[in-house]
Amino acid sequence: MDYYSKEISKLIQELSGLPGIGAKTAQRLAFHILNMSNEQVQDLAGAMLSAKQNVKYCKRCFTLTDEELCPICKNAARNQKQIMVVENTRDLAAYEKTGKFDGVYHVLHGAISPMLGIGPGDIKLKELMQRLQTEEVDEVIIATNSSLEGETTAMYISKLIKPTGIKVTRIASGVPVGGDLEYIDEVTLLRALEGRTEL
Amino acid sequence: MDYYSKEISKLIQELSGLPGIGAKTAQRLAFHILNMSNEQVQDLAGAMLSAKQNVKYCKRCFTLTDEELCPICKNAARNQKQIMVVENTRDLAAYEKTGKFDGVYHVLHGAISPMLGIGPGDIKLKELMQRLQTEEVDEVIIATNSSLEGETTAMYISKLIKPTGIKVTRIASGVPVGGDLEYIDEVTLLRALEGRTEL
Repeated sequence: MDYYSKEISKLIQELSGLPGIGAKTAQRLAFHILNMSNEQVQDLAGAMLSAKQNVKYCKRCFTLTDEELCPICKNAARNQKQIMVVENTRDLAAYEKTGKFDGVYHVLHGAISPMLGIGPGDIKLKELMQRLQTEEVDEVIIATNSSLEGETTAMYISKLIKPTGIKVTRIASGVPVGGDLEYIDEVTLLRALEGRTEL
Repeated sequence: MDYYSKEISKLIQELSGLPGIGAKTAQRLAFHILNMSNEQVQDLAGAMLSAKQNVKYCKRCFTLTDEELCPICKNAARNQKQIMVVENTRDLAAYEKTGKFDGVYHVLHGAISPMLGIGPGDIKLKELMQRLQTEEVDEVIIATNSSLEGETTAMYISKLIKPTGIKVTRIASGVPVGGDLEYIDEVTLLRALEGRTEL
């Protein structure tokens, strides 16, 4: 890319490192950024730096948040005895968009995958078991993805929890097999929630 | 988006302001950025800020560069008497990628568009005419886009330059290489017929 000067090449290179951003898109974005006002560029770059610096895990449910406890864990109006286990914060957001689930969450930050070498110790599973010991919990709803890894994780978690006597459920397979929660329409998500069965 | 904390919502909102980045993509990018290392985020944000701060117009050809004169204008190996006029820096890059043009450029930063209220005074046209007076120029190749605005601009520029006696040419318009006649619009087919060359 020696037809662009150093600073522009560097910007294009950095942008093309983002997922789904190819060379052409990175180029278009770079020139868009150069045409933005100074203030707009500072807002954009500032939002990245600030989010990266201030966003951490909620100390209870491990979703990404900028406070000690996330807004959902702090919300007294929600049923704190019903915990939905999801793989990541985007999946949490997908269920929040339905507006119908009033329990709380536990974010695993991954799923068990022997193929990728991700074991039970690499996700926030120990932390879930600790919550079940210290909190009063009526039900654990396992809402991991309907993929091989998600199903494996669901089975593993249900086997861990069963001996404690806490009710464990799995969202219904209204979710298409191989589908990713993040991209599924809200009606299907709700159908899956209503149709959950005891494991 | 109150299911995301403030910092994350702000980041998603800033990202979705970029061209071609919808809500879903912005969300995916935001979580990718949060998962990047501190150093990587600083590199990305830094590249934006630094590029915005240091990139300016080349004082001769008006392409975007971080030096007084762009690498092409400084390059003594290039034919400084042959100027290709393009609408923007990306179009310049497109021709540079061919690696076969050894002249220099003049970047207009737009095209004349009465519809959008962009007149000859809004693009770097005065600057082109000044170059033709102060530099020794053999040929001006007009490589504006083959759109209504690009064609209007090409006509306007050729009328301005003709009286100076400098040779003015326009890049050929016709069937793209590899193109299938069946799928090409009629205007292009007619243009290709008019511009036919003897074999």
